[in-house]
Order: sequence, then C-alpha cells, then structure tokens
Amino acid sequence: MKKYALFLVLSFILSFKAHAEDGSRLWLRYDSTAMKSITLQLDPAMPLDDGYRIEGRVVKARTQQGLLYGKYACLRGEQGESHPYFRLRILNHWDNIDGSIERGYAGNSIFWDGSPSSPLNAQLINSYAEACASIGINGTVLNNVNASPKMLTTAYLNKVKEIADILRPWGIRVYLSVNFGSPKALGATRTADPLNPQVHRWWNNKAKEIYRLIPDFGGFLVKANSEGQPGPFDYGRTHADGANMLADALKPYGGIVMWRSFVYGAKHKGEDRVMQAVSEFADLDGQFRDNVILQSKNGPLDFQPREPYAPIFDQMKQTKQMAELQITQEYLGQGDHLVFLAPMWKEFFSYVEPSRLVGIAGVANIGLDTNWCGHHFAQANWYAFGRLAWNPAISSEQIASEWLGLTFNEECGLKGMMLRSREACVDYMMPLGLHHIFKFDHHMGPEPDGFKAEYPLEWCPVYYHKADAAGIGFDRSTRGTGATRQYREPYSTLYDSPATCPERYLLWFHHLPWDYRTLSGRTLWEEMQYRYNRGVSEVEDFIRIWQEARPYIDEQRWQEVDAKLHKQLHDAQEWRDTCLGYFGSFAVR
Amino acid sequence: MKKYALFLVLSFILSFKAHAEDGSRLWLRYDSTAMKSITLQLDPAMPLDDGYRIEGRVVKARTQQGLLYGKYACLRGEQGESHPYFRLRILNHWDNIDGSIERGYAGNSIFWDGSPSSPLNAQLINSYAEACASIGINGTVLNNVNASPKMLTTAYLNKVKEIADILRPWGIRVYLSVNFGSPKALGATRTADPLNPQVHRWWNNKAKEIYRLIPDFGGFLVKANSEGQPGPFDYGRTHADGANMLADALKPYGGIVMWRSFVYGAKHKGEDRVMQAVSEFADLDGQFRDNVILQSKNGPLDFQPREPYAPIFDQMKQTKQMAELQITQEYLGQGDHLVFLAPMWKEFFSYVEPSRLVGIAGVANIGLDTNWCGHHFAQANWYAFGRLAWNPAISSEQIASEWLGLTFNEECGLKGMMLRSREACVDYMMPLGLHHIFKFDHHMGPEPDGFKAEYPLEWCPVYYHKADAAGIGFDRSTRGTGATRQYREPYSTLYDSPATCPERYLLWFHHLPWDYRTLSGRTLWEEMQYRYNRGVSEVEDFIRIWQEARPYIDEQRWQEVDAKLHKQLHDAQEWRDTCLGYFGSFAVR
Repeated sequence: MKKYALFLVLSFILSFKAHAEDGSRLWLRYDSTAMKSITLQLDPAMPLDDGYRIEGRVVKARTQQGLLYGKYACLRGEQGESHPYFRLRILNHWDNIDGSIERGYAGNSIFWDGSPSSPLNAQLINSYAEACASIGINGTVLNNVNASPKMLTTAYLNKVKEIADILRPWGIRVYLSVNFGSPKALGATRTADPLNPQVHRWWNNKAKEIYRLIPDFGGFLVKANSEGQPGPFDYGRTHADGANMLADALKPYGGIVMWRSFVYGAKHKGEDRVMQAVSEFADLDGQFRDNVILQSKNGPLDFQPREPYAPIFDQMKQTKQMAELQITQEYLGQGDHLVFLAPMWKEFFSYVEPSRLVGIAGVANIGLDTNWCGHHFAQANWYAFGRLAWNPAISSEQIASEWLGLTFNEECGLKGMMLRSREACVDYMMPLGLHHIFKFDHHMGPEPDGFKAEYPLEWCPVYYHKADAAGIGFDRSTRGTGATRQYREPYSTLYDSPATCPERYLLWFHHLPWDYRTLSGRTLWEEMQYRYNRGVSEVEDFIRIWQEARPYIDEQRWQEVDAKLHKQLHDAQEWRDTCLGYFGSFAVR
Repeated sequence: MKKYALFLVLSFILSFKAHAEDGSRLWLRYDSTAMKSITLQLDPAMPLDDGYRIEGRVVKARTQQGLLYGKYACLRGEQGESHPYFRLRILNHWDNIDGSIERGYAGNSIFWDGSPSSPLNAQLINSYAEACASIGINGTVLNNVNASPKMLTTAYLNKVKEIADILRPWGIRVYLSVNFGSPKALGATRTADPLNPQVHRWWNNKAKEIYRLIPDFGGFLVKANSEGQPGPFDYGRTHADGANMLADALKPYGGIVMWRSFVYGAKHKGEDRVMQAVSEFADLDGQFRDNVILQSKNGPLDFQPREPYAPIFDQMKQTKQMAELQITQEYLGQGDHLVFLAPMWKEFFSYVEPSRLVGIAGVANIGLDTNWCGHHFAQANWYAFGRLAWNPAISSEQIASEWLGLTFNEECGLKGMMLRSREACVDYMMPLGLHHIFKFDHHMGPEPDGFKAEYPLEWCPVYYHKADAAGIGFDRSTRGTGATRQYREPYSTLYDSPATCPERYLLWFHHLPWDYRTLSGRTLWEEMQYRYNRGVSEVEDFIRIWQEARPYIDEQRWQEVDAKLHKQLHDAQEWRDTCLGYFGSFAVR
C-alpha cells in the first residue's frame, strides 16, 4: 500500500512538472545539469569510426562525432560500447522549394519558403540538427525527389550552403535531389543527354560550384524516368549512363549518387509493377561507378503498411545498395494515426541482411508544426529510424522504451500500444497481403472500387486486389505474373504456393477463392472480416489505454493525442466498413 | 604578517602537490572535475568559424571544433568571445622518416622510426594532438622539408593515413613535405619536369591515392631549388610552373600547396643572400594558382635571433602568403637556452600586418623526450605559437602569464625572466644587428672567424659581419648591396641611413667604423662590449630568479631547468668572450 501511495505522489508531481509540453522539445528534454556531469574523452585506441564507449558518466570515442553521439547515448542511459552499423544514415526531405512538402503532414518546410533570399530560421534548423545528431543521423537530402531544376541555381545553392553551415557541426552532410534534365531546363544546354559533352561539362562545373560552397557536400539523389521525371531513357541511354555521368562529376570531391530504383511504366510498361525495378536494373548490375548507390524502397510497390521485401536487394550483386524507408506515414494514416513503424522496418531487415546495404534513408515526417511531426507519436518514428540506422539489431521494444522514457516519462501501457499499432493498421487497412486500396492521389482512406480510365492502371486499386466472384488477390506466382521468381530461395519457392506463403503476404502473391481455408480454420472471407474487425478493436483498445494513462501525461499532449486516436478509430471503422462492404458484394452470394 | 604566513603555507602545499612533475603533461594539468563543470552548446547564431563565446562555465560555438577550442579556453580562464585570426595554423615537423629530426633538440620523431610498418604510438600522438588543439593549431606537416621521395610511397602513405585518423578528431589536418623530384626518384618517370604530361599524370594519380586514404588531406609543403633540393629550375621552368602543377593535382580535393620562398644560390647566386627571395619571386607575382601559398621565413636570412622582417611580404601583392616561424631554437641555444620567442614573433607582426597573411606555420620543437621539447621552457614557445596563430594581437605578457599559470602555478618573477630572455639572447649572441656568427652546420656556439673555402660564401660568418680594421657590419644600403630598396616606405628610407636605422638592425644594414657614435653616447665598439656583457648578466639574473622561485616549483623540473640555466650562462660567456676577442683584434689598436 505504501509503495502505491508513493507512486501516486510521484505521478502527481510528474504530471505537474510537465505542464508546458507542446512536443517541441522532442526527445531532448534533459535538464542542463545532466549534460554537465558527463566527461568526454577522445581515445585513439577505440575503433576508427564514430562509435563510443560509455562507462558510468565517462564517454570515450575515437572521433569528436563519436563523443557527440556518446553524450546523447549517455543521457538516454546507455552503457558500454556501440558503433554505427550503416555508413549512410540519411533523412530524405520531400520538401519543395515553394515551402510545401510532398507527403508532409506537419506543416510546411523548415528549409524552404518560396524565396531563395529570405533568411533561414537558423535556430529551428539547429534544433533539427541536434535532434538528428542525438540519434546518429549523418546526412540529409534537403529537397523533394521530384526536384525543381531551380535548386541548382546559384541563388538556391547559396541557401544550401547556409543550411550546410548550420548542420556541419552536428556531423550532418547535406545532399540534394537533382532533376536529371536540369541543364536543359535551365537553358544552359539543348539536351540533357548524359553522353553529350556539353551536358557533361555543365554537371562538372556545377559540382565544382557546389563543392566550392560546401566542401563536404554529400552528393545527389536522383529520381529519373519515374512518374514523369526526365532521365537518360529520354535520349536512349541507360540508368547506368545517367548515374555514372553524375558520379564522375562528383567523384573528385568524394560525393556519391543515390540513384532510385523506383521506376515503373517506362521501358517495362505493362509488366507487373512490382517486377519492373528488377527488370530495369538487373542487366546493369556491375555497370555502375563505385560512388553510385542504388536506393530502393523496402517493398517492391510503394511504402504500403505491409509489403514483402523488394527482390531488387537480391538481384543486384555487384551494385552498392541502400534502402529507402518512409518515416512520413503516406499510406499509414498520415498525420492522424498512431502507428509505430519500427516493427515494419525490423520485418524488412529480417529478410534483407543489413550487411548487404551501405546505408538507409528515411523519407522525413518533419515540418514547421510546433511538435515537428504533426502527431506526437510520429516523433517516435523519426527516433526509431535514427536508432535502426545506427544499429538495425536493436529491438522495437527497446526503441519504444527509450523513446517513451525520453518523452512521456511513464510507460503505463503505452509501449504495448506502440508495438501493436502497426499490425493494427495493417488489419484495418489491408490485411492478408492486400495493398494499394487507397483513395487516389492523396492516399488517405479507402477506395477499393477505385478505377479511372485516364490514370495508369498501376495507380488503380482494382488492379491490385482483383476482387471478383471467383476470389481476391494478385496472382504473382509462376502461374501468374511470376514475380515470385525474382526472389532468392527459399522465398521464391515459399511464396509461390499459397500453402507455404506466409498469410501476411497471401493476397500479395495469390488470387484465392473466397472460401479458401486459412490457418485459423476460417474461410478467406471470414478471416478478412475477422482481421478488419480486429484492427478496429485494437484502436478502441488504444483509446482505453490512453484514457488510463491520462494522470501521468501533461494535459496538452494528452488532449492532442486523444483527439487523433478518435479520428484514427473513425478512419479504421471507415476502412473496415468500406472494404468489407465492397468485397462483400463479391464474396457474399 | 598573517597574509605572508598564509602565502608560505600555500606555497608549501603547492610544492608538495607538484611532486611528480616531469613536464609530460605540458599545459594540460587540469583535473578532470574541471572538465565536468563546463557546458558546451552549439549556437547557430554565432559567426561561421571555429571561434567561441564563454559566459561563466558555458561555452557556445558555431562548430564542434569551436566548442573544443572553447573548452580549453574556458579551462585556462578565458571569458567572452574569441575567433581564430589565421585560417592556417600549422606546425611544420622537420622529421625525417628514419626518426631523426633536423634541428630537433628533444629526441627522435613522434611519427617516424625508420620503418613504415611498425605500429604507431597512438596514445602519444593523441596527446600531441590534444595539446595542439588546446591552443588552436589546425594543421601539421608530418615530415622534413628536405623530403624523402619515399614519403609518397604507398607504405608511408598508409602510415600517414593512420596518423591522420588520430589527428582528425582534434580538428588537425595532415600535410606532407614533398620532394619535387619524387616521380623521377621513385623511377616512375624519366624526368620531374613540371610541364611533362607523364609527370603531371603521376602527381594527379598520387593526389588521388592520397585523398582516397585521407579525404581531408591538407596539401603539400615544398622546398624546391633550395640548398640542393630538386625543383623546376632543373628543367628551365619557374617556381610558378612547379607550384601550379602540384596545385592543379590537389585542387579537385581542396588541397593547397605551400611553396617556400627560402631560395638562394640558384638563379641569383652571388647576389646578397637576403635579397635573393625577392629577386626570385617578384616577377612571378600573379602567376600562382589560387591554392598556392608562398611560405616565407619571418626574416630574409634564416631564423636568426633578430632579423628585420623579410621584404618579400611587401613585394608579393597578388600572391597568397604565410609566414614560417621557427619554434625550435636552431639559432637560439637549441635545447639548452631559455628563450621565450613570443616577443620575437610580435616584433615581426609589428612590421608585417597579420591581415596580409592567410596563415602562419611554426617549425616544431617536439620530440620523444619526456617533456616533449627538451627544455621545460621550450614548451612555452609551442604554446605561444598556437596562441599567436589564433590571435596575433595577444601580448607576450599575456601568453607568458597564461602558460606559467598552467604549468608552474606561480609567477614569482618567472614572467619577467621569460619576457627578457629573447633580448638577452640577442645581446650575448649578436647585438646591434650582427648575424650568422654561428659555428658551421650545427649552429650552436660562436665562430666569428668562420670561413671555409669549400663552403658557399653565404654559409660563412665572415661574409655577414665583414669585420675589418675600418669597422664592422654589412652595408645593405643603397651604397652597398641595396637590400634596403626591397622594403616598403618608410622602412626603405629609414633603414638606408645609419642615422635613422633602428640600432637593433644597425649592423644588418650598415658597415660602420669602430668609433661610430651610438645613441647611448658610447662608440660602436664600446656599445658592443656593453651589450655582450649585458646579455651575460641577464642570464646571471635568470639564475638568481630561478633560485628564488625554488620553493614554489617541483624539484624535478627545478633541477632540470637550473642545470640548463647554468649551461646557458656558460654559453653566453663563451659567445661574449669569443666574439669580443675576435672583433677586438680589429677594433682595439
């Protein structure tokens, strides 16, 4: 009884202490005395990277950057030795120079506001950098992959330099997304053909200009011949021709090219969309310069709440690769749903060995909102990305514990809620391997009957679920599109048969009758109903957990999250009702 | 009385506390609790350099490097804001790869030991780096300007990389001295002609190899066509041809070439040696690449205890320039004499505006000796070099106070001794502008009658003092060699007449009769006697001061310095007696 009374008193104190919580401080709520008690020591006997060793309140590292990382690790209670796993730990900001953010749900860009000459919010960008550095992020792409050629004009490069100057002390390099057609679009050349000497020269000079301003500039990220962007195909050249030209321009300065494999509807138009990346790139394996890195999304489609891993990670054996993860929740409830993404990324790493990758990039969920990410719990995904980029072996549980300890001070069921949230989202949006049932363009909410004749078929939900009287699902087995052939063994064989395919990917790879018997004993249609309902009831449970946690949480954040949880429940119900209503019209006879 | 008693007690405690002082800790004797109480904050509103602002125990800076500098500044008691004056703050180690050090008086090299494959003393090099960083030094040339071509072989470059990896966290870039004939000497080409394409290619590839190992490699230091070293003259090319070829190889990576102007006996052989640098380089002004920096010694001859400033700093108006100072006491008593060099360097800056320079380099006095520099007080010159490289406006007094506070904890007359020591050395070695009266080759001790027919005349003392029955001194006025013409006004006119030439440079610029009347009213010969004797009596006074300071100084360092002071007195007496004896044979009739 005494213990409980003390707990109540402590809770009372904590709830008072946290009166002015608007989320702006992220996970950096240390008081400054905590900083003072840490001793930082450079130690030349440590391994040569930015890792650290913590013994008590003493941090040792081989580099200044390691001491910085170690300081924050010490503040969050780490002990012992830790080293960064991936060399490249990069945030991709899909920020447009007009200040808007593609797939951004937390306000406008912290970097851009439509004018290259307006002053930066240096203090805000500095806080952003501290948050990134505190979790080991060491690179940032400042603009959208659908890149404006204007980004490479001197006016914008001068602004990039200013940003780089703020990020540099935190060990964060800047990168830029570039439009492949830039020299032509800016009127400097008549073509953007990568084999044209004038085009070459333009890019070489541009690289020189950039490095004069930013000697540690990281490099370029390129979306080429994808969704309307210009690229080497426009001139009958290959992705290797295009990437290598840029790589040669950056090479003297140590810069890299991150070339995205997210390409479909180009040379292999008509083929199953999830197969096109491998079809586009497999023949080019071995043809890329050593400072080109192929950047591929974790799944072969497009950042769905669940996808099997992208087989391009199996197929490119001589090419450096990195994974592109999406922190911003384009397809996972955007700014409204509480979905902790660490379990999704851990699932990816269970298929794609981290040792095959030189880095990971995460599409950022950061904007001008007071709490940075729109949803207070969306901060946890920024945090989780950084932690997994540092060490993909850390468990989701540990990341959730760490983050909760740094932000809400109490767990009281919140960790369980976070860990269950992604599976709940899959359940209420697209269970059993269903995918891309989203409303057009904005990707919020369900549209299972979605079909527009004027749109590419690959953008239409009906193309993906293929529900009809006979059943539901996309046959990608060797009897269908043959996408399973792109996987390495044993996955190629396992995925090819409904009997051995994991149920979570069932309708991704197979078209099955409504009365197909699932592992639970229920028919496929019954199992779909069960899972959609389970997703909704999970969110109901999250609301209950949040209600119970109220005494331990400051009022402002509690209210804001509570409102979003109710919106999430409403959306989950909509997903369930819309999808079961639509699919039921085929299933129930 | 009470106050005095307390002083004695405190002194007693201090003398006990300092029982294990061997000088190995340099000026870094902070206890670790002092470190803990300092808060470091990155502040994006600070100016964009490695400066810092200190308020109480809070250090703010724009960069991590600034925080590091600020931490040490805070530890030595600084408050307020400070920014680095020179961009390049470099130590030049004249270390040979066999481990010996040219003009080194403190043991062998901390970097090299004759084998490229033996393990480094990483802990020692790390301590060296901390000491450098604590005073703002940000670059180090790892090898002698009389450079072995072997330094550029892969085996040695791998070792350079290891050293760079240790220095990098402290913000210190590595540079290398290179032998201009390297490609030929290593058998890769038949020539080292800077206009030969194969030679070009060799250097380009070498730069590429270096930067692959060391992405932040600083650049090359070159002694070409000087004292037997190969250079572009060997192929009928100019210094600009040579420097620019190397600069082009380093340019893509941001590297620089420091090209020494210390050239004599080449194209302008026979001309007054102090004039030859201007004669060699003046016509090339404007022909150097923008990453070439001309590195010139502070004086036009060679690191004498006193020289007028080198007029090349006046003559090269379109060329980037840096000054080369000598920390190691080649001509100032080497490892045995207590000579604090800050006043000498301040004298230089009073003639050559620091704003004309992009950096300063100091020839290091560091070796494997336990106390790093041979003489405990020689550490103060390493310290002073760093502090003046950071801010040439700091006074010699302040530097001496800082250093004494960090090393001996008590001043008790020591500051006055340090501040008087350079003038004393000038007095007992070469008063009134006399110069280069040193024993051949090793430059320790006097040899006023020095002449060897087989040596270049410019190496012989008699060439410099020109003592004869008519008088003494080197007529460099317009009636003599005309060296005064190389100076900007008003110095050109002032130096040209004995009446207006400062007496400290009198015999540098003029040959004057023994009965010439000096400002004191004494004849020149009487004034020489007076000054030689004053130098000796100054050292006698230093011994007395040191004796009085004994209660406040640990026994080991006291004994070691005391022994050296007695050696210094002996040497000063030898200088006086030898020189007055020799000159007296002409003066006294």
